[in-house]
Amino acid sequence: MSKKAWGGRFDEEPNALAARFSASVDVDSRLAEEDIQGSIAHANMLASIGVLTGADVKKITEGLAQILDEVRAGTMTWDASREDVHMNIEARLTERIGDAGARLHTGRSRNDQVATDMRLWTRAACEKTARHVDELIAVLIVRAHQTRHHLMPGYTHMQRAQPIRLPHHLLAWCEMLERDRGRLDDAQKRMNESPLGSGALATTTFPLDRQETAKALGFARPLRNSLDAVSDRDFLVEALAALANCAVHLSRIGEELVLWSSQEFGFVQMSDAFTTGSSMMPQKKNPDMAELVRGKSARVIGDLVTMLVLLKGLPLAYNRDLQEDKRPVFDAFDTVDDSLQILSGALATANFNKERMRAALRDGFLEATDLADYLAARGVPFREAHHVAGRLVRLAVETGRTLPELSLVELKKEHAMFEGDVSKLFDPEVLVDLRDVEGGPAWSRVQEALTDSMKRLRSRGTEAEKAAAKFGVVLT
Amino acid sequence: MSKKAWGGRFDEEPNALAARFSASVDVDSRLAEEDIQGSIAHANMLASIGVLTGADVKKITEGLAQILDEVRAGTMTWDASREDVHMNIEARLTERIGDAGARLHTGRSRNDQVATDMRLWTRAACEKTARHVDELIAVLIVRAHQTRHHLMPGYTHMQRAQPIRLPHHLLAWCEMLERDRGRLDDAQKRMNESPLGSGALATTTFPLDRQETAKALGFARPLRNSLDAVSDRDFLVEALAALANCAVHLSRIGEELVLWSSQEFGFVQMSDAFTTGSSMMPQKKNPDMAELVRGKSARVIGDLVTMLVLLKGLPLAYNRDLQEDKRPVFDAFDTVDDSLQILSGALATANFNKERMRAALRDGFLEATDLADYLAARGVPFREAHHVAGRLVRLAVETGRTLPELSLVELKKEHAMFEGDVSKLFDPEVLVDLRDVEGGPAWSRVQEALTDSMKRLRSRGTEAEKAAAKFGVVLT
Amino acid sequence: MSKKAWGGRFDEEPNALAARFSASVDVDSRLAEEDIQGSIAHANMLASIGVLTGADVKKITEGLAQILDEVRAGTMTWDASREDVHMNIEARLTERIGDAGARLHTGRSRNDQVATDMRLWTRAACEKTARHVDELIAVLIVRAHQTRHHLMPGYTHMQRAQPIRLPHHLLAWCEMLERDRGRLDDAQKRMNESPLGSGALATTTFPLDRQETAKALGFARPLRNSLDAVSDRDFLVEALAALANCAVHLSRIGEELVLWSSQEFGFVQMSDAFTTGSSMMPQKKNPDMAELVRGKSARVIGDLVTMLVLLKGLPLAYNRDLQEDKRPVFDAFDTVDDSLQILSGALATANFNKERMRAALRDGFLEATDLADYLAARGVPFREAHHVAGRLVRLAVETGRTLPELSLVELKKEHAMFEGDVSKLFDPEVLVDLRDVEGGPAWSRVQEALTDSMKRLRSRGTEAEKAAAKFGVVLT
Amino acid sequence: MSKKAWGGRFDEEPNALAARFSASVDVDSRLAEEDIQGSIAHANMLASIGVLTGADVKKITEGLAQILDEVRAGTMTWDASREDVHMNIEARLTERIGDAGARLHTGRSRNDQVATDMRLWTRAACEKTARHVDELIAVLIVRAHQTRHHLMPGYTHMQRAQPIRLPHHLLAWCEMLERDRGRLDDAQKRMNESPLGSGALATTTFPLDRQETAKALGFARPLRNSLDAVSDRDFLVEALAALANCAVHLSRIGEELVLWSSQEFGFVQMSDAFTTGSSMMPQKKNPDMAELVRGKSARVIGDLVTMLVLLKGLPLAYNRDLQEDKRPVFDAFDTVDDSLQILSGALATANFNKERMRAALRDGFLEATDLADYLAARGVPFREAHHVAGRLVRLAVETGRTLPELSLVELKKEHAMFEGDVSKLFDPEVLVDLRDVEGGPAWSRVQEALTDSMKRLRSRGTEAEKAAAKFGVVLT
Repeated sequence: MSKKAWGGRFDEEPNALAARFSASVDVDSRLAEEDIQGSIAHANMLASIGVLTGADVKKITEGLAQILDEVRAGTMTWDASREDVHMNIEARLTERIGDAGARLHTGRSRNDQVATDMRLWTRAACEKTARHVDELIAVLIVRAHQTRHHLMPGYTHMQRAQPIRLPHHLLAWCEMLERDRGRLDDAQKRMNESPLGSGALATTTFPLDRQETAKALGFARPLRNSLDAVSDRDFLVEALAALANCAVHLSRIGEELVLWSSQEFGFVQMSDAFTTGSSMMPQKKNPDMAELVRGKSARVIGDLVTMLVLLKGLPLAYNRDLQEDKRPVFDAFDTVDDSLQILSGALATANFNKERMRAALRDGFLEATDLADYLAARGVPFREAHHVAGRLVRLAVETGRTLPELSLVELKKEHAMFEGDVSKLFDPEVLVDLRDVEGGPAWSRVQEALTDSMKRLRSRGTEAEKAAAKFGVVLT
Repeated sequence: MSKKAWGGRFDEEPNALAARFSASVDVDSRLAEEDIQGSIAHANMLASIGVLTGADVKKITEGLAQILDEVRAGTMTWDASREDVHMNIEARLTERIGDAGARLHTGRSRNDQVATDMRLWTRAACEKTARHVDELIAVLIVRAHQTRHHLMPGYTHMQRAQPIRLPHHLLAWCEMLERDRGRLDDAQKRMNESPLGSGALATTTFPLDRQETAKALGFARPLRNSLDAVSDRDFLVEALAALANCAVHLSRIGEELVLWSSQEFGFVQMSDAFTTGSSMMPQKKNPDMAELVRGKSARVIGDLVTMLVLLKGLPLAYNRDLQEDKRPVFDAFDTVDDSLQILSGALATANFNKERMRAALRDGFLEATDLADYLAARGVPFREAHHVAGRLVRLAVETGRTLPELSLVELKKEHAMFEGDVSKLFDPEVLVDLRDVEGGPAWSRVQEALTDSMKRLRSRGTEAEKAAAKFGVVLT
Repeated sequence: MSKKAWGGRFDEEPNALAARFSASVDVDSRLAEEDIQGSIAHANMLASIGVLTGADVKKITEGLAQILDEVRAGTMTWDASREDVHMNIEARLTERIGDAGARLHTGRSRNDQVATDMRLWTRAACEKTARHVDELIAVLIVRAHQTRHHLMPGYTHMQRAQPIRLPHHLLAWCEMLERDRGRLDDAQKRMNESPLGSGALATTTFPLDRQETAKALGFARPLRNSLDAVSDRDFLVEALAALANCAVHLSRIGEELVLWSSQEFGFVQMSDAFTTGSSMMPQKKNPDMAELVRGKSARVIGDLVTMLVLLKGLPLAYNRDLQEDKRPVFDAFDTVDDSLQILSGALATANFNKERMRAALRDGFLEATDLADYLAARGVPFREAHHVAGRLVRLAVETGRTLPELSLVELKKEHAMFEGDVSKLFDPEVLVDLRDVEGGPAWSRVQEALTDSMKRLRSRGTEAEKAAAKFGVVLT
Repeated sequence: MSKKAWGGRFDEEPNALAARFSASVDVDSRLAEEDIQGSIAHANMLASIGVLTGADVKKITEGLAQILDEVRAGTMTWDASREDVHMNIEARLTERIGDAGARLHTGRSRNDQVATDMRLWTRAACEKTARHVDELIAVLIVRAHQTRHHLMPGYTHMQRAQPIRLPHHLLAWCEMLERDRGRLDDAQKRMNESPLGSGALATTTFPLDRQETAKALGFARPLRNSLDAVSDRDFLVEALAALANCAVHLSRIGEELVLWSSQEFGFVQMSDAFTTGSSMMPQKKNPDMAELVRGKSARVIGDLVTMLVLLKGLPLAYNRDLQEDKRPVFDAFDTVDDSLQILSGALATANFNKERMRAALRDGFLEATDLADYLAARGVPFREAHHVAGRLVRLAVETGRTLPELSLVELKKEHAMFEGDVSKLFDPEVLVDLRDVEGGPAWSRVQEALTDSMKRLRSRGTEAEKAAAKFGVVLT
């Protein structure tokens, strides 16, 4: 008998290239654990409805448990001529327990089987990634606490714009990550429905109890339509889109770490453990981890594109094209998980250079907005005030000075409403704390944000200090 | 004075090409309504905190109301030399009401302004698209009711697989659309936070009340970090990903309609209103709308890619690259909205050919699974039963017959357990109704699904019959 | 001493996660052969300019030759803690030959080294893929010869349009593939320049002879700018774009094979070796190879996107992001190579069903264009003639007949110019051969095209019959 | 009579939404000129083969010439109810000249017509873009001449690596652009074949002379297969891929200009004409043009993806999906053309800050490689020399000095082979000119490269000084 599940109708063995081309076990063996879970649930249900005997189920579940041990121990032999993870496990089971193993596939098709496996796997993957997101958030919160006295320029167009506080910047990253987490949660919830029992596309003539298997596998409910259950992969697109959004966020953090690590900025020095050197240039200490995080985001975007293109224009129900859904999903989760942990480690051990940040506030005329606001607060229409400040900047540029170095006389020449109290605008600490608006960089506001962020994290059961400590960061 | 908002520091006018290259008003004038809403909320708040007088606010809100009328009437003149929608409206306002207009921009930057506009616009767009999704679902439910007696082959690998019922297929599409709707809802909820008051990146020194403006604009709350508020566009990625998922679903429906319209399938004839002809071949009646729906999905995927690439590797906070966020978003919503409505119209008026569908059940050996199940139900291990059925198919192929044309003797020769009652498997109606599993094609299950789908639609306040009637479909 | 090439400046070992995250040897060990070639060329040149002694070079080249043997035999041990293929080989070399190995890296950086490796690898990969393209073309030409009497409908909008000849369709595929080949050739030519000697980014202070190494490695010339040489990967984008174009072509062929394999079309039956069955449905014979070819094209598109995104916005010169350039390139070449060979095998062994194709010409009113042309040739303006033919189609539809079943009287009623000779249009063989225009389906034209295609193939040195025979196709 | 070209077979008018959804004239009217060219060639050929009379052709060509005038004058009225550019022009022609106009479409389909138009349009577009590439190259060459004394750090990993010369960096950009140009040329050549005469898919029964029309339209030859001619769009994918590669190059230039414009780098100041300000912050002078160039590259990548997705899995021959091929092509060419010109203007008028660049050479230990090379040149194995230099860098870091500030004693302590002549390595001018390798930054090499680049440009007939002068750059 052929090793294939469908040998009955065929004369010749598939040719070797075709066998290799269509085999998927090198990729989908990663689903072994989920496949076994699904089979156990299916077997128990078949017993509940009288299709299998209790004895059969006992053999099946014990046999599968032993296979699971082999899988975990790495001793399971995967045979590409058996195509995929499902046939490998079933064949191994039948080797062990005989006929009962061959009965397991009653009322089931690989179509609903693989759809079940992928939902179980992806559900768990979302949870794991969310945990890594939480860890990075925890690290950021702790680092934000530690650097509360670090003033720095905020940038727009990569030009120094207005003075802020480093923790304000780090908390912006937290907000991005919080939304990523929300998307992963939503994706996980929406995908948490059971395809099992849908058969090849039209359920089966056995009176399967799909509620029972759904419950056994922790699904919220069975999917409501059997065709849909075996043919759609929108839940993978959704998960990949959430990951792509997250990967882009991480690439932005990576970009800033690369920038800040440059001699020109000098805002941060990554620890030795998270930098590498050059084979040619002995002086180099490169922010490779940040670069790789930035670069690897491209993979996740590519993975998302692959999945969308794969599905585009496919008729219902199952088509073999869908076999290609696994690689991009595994790759995207692996990439994002690694990137999150690398950033946690890198940020936990980074040394933020307070002096360089502070020094950067000197040049760039960052007080200009405040000069305009000063006038606006005194009744000058903002557009006019803005022009006055612009002219003052030009004066400073032309005379090679900073704004604080302009005299009150010069200021008054541009607008009579300037008074001596304008000088308070020339202390960056003051300027930052003047921005005392919800969500702003004033210390009181940042403190509020820190407290809230910590609370939010804890409300999810995340022990923030522990998560941070894992990466060597201690809240002081 | 220059027309630009930032003329103070500059000597020369931007060169003409640069002006054209950087102007966005041809695209972002579509945000006019949201821009005015945001300005009114900002002005009222500035009055609440004493920065504007009541008189100023009155002038501003009246002026803006008049401009809104002009915009709606199409009489507003958009001037590309004023760069964008914000400066066009502000300039027009200042023309009308003088100084008060120039005071409106106090404590605000175009960075938080445009972020607010985009969130308002996209929030509404999600709602509109969700409504179009509901309409298509309503049409599908009604058509499913009307075609409950249409049996057809279900396909896998585009090979006839097992008999189903057309409404079962149409309801599979509904399930796909339901999840699309869920994603749009989630996206809308997550984006419903207010950037207003974040200023250029660091809020402002005016004591803005961001809660007030958030509330006035129907946002759930202010965004918690001002840097994040002006620099992230993940909410657009999320919306575009939801649209791309939906567009891929629509492309799959389009593909099936094209297939079913072929002479080979002949399952459906689109109405004249939704087909076109050929300039060369007089006999052609092409399913162009379905093809266009399929083809246009490529735009939405391209739009999503554009947005992800745009953001990849950008440092905080605002960068001018972000100006390019609008075109893909507008295009993707327009494309999906049109495609949904076209499919509603096309499906509402399509003529499903019951006879051709039924005829297609004859060839393809669709009873083979049931022969295997027949044996499996009598205790034969499924894998063995599957092989028996495979050999029967081969016998039928070799002798040019269908499975029902094989004799009981021939069946028994392959397996002794076949008895006379096997003949009931040769009536497709019976075969379909034997698949009496939750989510399956048996009539009772489809009926359940129809009732549930209708209930779900109504629970969202959608009047399904009305929505369907809009496209000419009446529930009978 | 640390295993890293850059250990001198560092205190602590990189952390384990970081080491795994940044190691690339699992992927880039595939470049071993090219890396060794490059090193030999570099070593010889260093001797030419007197930097290495003859003895050193002898040791180095012998050592590398032994390592190459190990690589080919699969006995080389790759050590992830040595990061990449370069350091693994160099370390192994130094183990073997001592100091001379450590001298090899003089005047070289991993930046120019890896750029050289990738160009060598991709150059060879383009050539291999071009060979697979040629094989598929050869198979198609042979199959076209064999099926010259197979008439079939040509389709537009997946509607039967006009009668053609199967070889005409197969030759359309050849033309697509010919252009793919041209693009691979162009890409190969443009990338055939040597980065070696560019060092990290600015060449080196050793008087390297870049002409010598370029020549030794078969490059047309050295790249003209050292910064460009180490930082650009446009040649990979170009190769990936050529592959994506090709993959999309293959997906289109795959789509048609899937369609034609359906019971509805029945135009082709793939051989058992290139189909698979179902684990549930015993009757299934699925065109999986064609589906997988179609599906796997999505990977290649994703790979191209990854590469573009990777490069977008990177400053010069080398950035670590570039490490991620290998995986998508390897994957895309592998996927396209496999898909080409699978299609060669599947098409070589496919059974085209002449009768089903011919039968498909009966329905669909494919003579309608010819009726219009008949009138147009007799002076009726084409647009009017088109309308007359359209009315005849409608008459046939309404009375349930084909066009040949309409009487001359009925034809004359619609337009007086119809005469008895119109009946010759009702023989498909005649209709096809009437299309006697360059590039058309008439037999004489197809014959011409076959001869030309064969000539073109041979002009590239491809022995077409041999290539085809490899897949079991013999020209008869 | 209906306005549609295919009204004969239909009862009802298409519904309004469907008409809007399928109309393309808003986009494809841009093909008017090419459409008219194609029609004139077709009409003349029809006369040559006796299908049209000389009088007809005269009327047709005169009528089309008048329509072309209207199109150019902007007075042509495009009517969406006539679907597309082809029907609009034909209808207008028939209005003007009657029956002869209706005869023009003999032996032609919109399928071969639009394929011809797109090839003509894209051929010209490639040429125009190539011209813009040449202009940017010319500007770069001139600026490279002007800045030959500007030394600067070369960067890897955005870390200062080795000293180079600004013109060396500018010429790296030239090399990237040269390859882009080569790809556009190749694409143009490969697409330069004529679809005209292929009809809907199978040519026609009229004895069309495809050589004549091909020649008249400047095509190298007719496409060899009529099915292929109307169904493939790989030439658009190829052009878009060339544009995407170019757009990514421009994004990289944009990124560097943004970086260099930052206060931290200060290497360049863009002219006022190519920067903009902030509506809130009066001091801002943002490198918006460079940011927009970087951002807009995302559109081109999205356009390429759209085109690939559009084609994926489409069966032959023409499908309506292909209507969507125009928008991404037009958008990508427009975007790249604009970006090229903007960069030409911006770079022509940029002020490179020689002092800031030079100052940046001081910090970063850029002499470290040369210290290692110094030892290697004296026989120390490079890997060991590298470690010595690494330790010297560490010493400098720990004692807060630069490498030139270390004493010879200290150097000798790390390695005895250091002698007094090592001090010459501490002059950046010397260091750069020591890199006297082909393609390197030494002045002699850069001079060579400049001469060659200029020669190459002129060999294409580009008058470099004129091209540069267009953007205000004069060679001094």
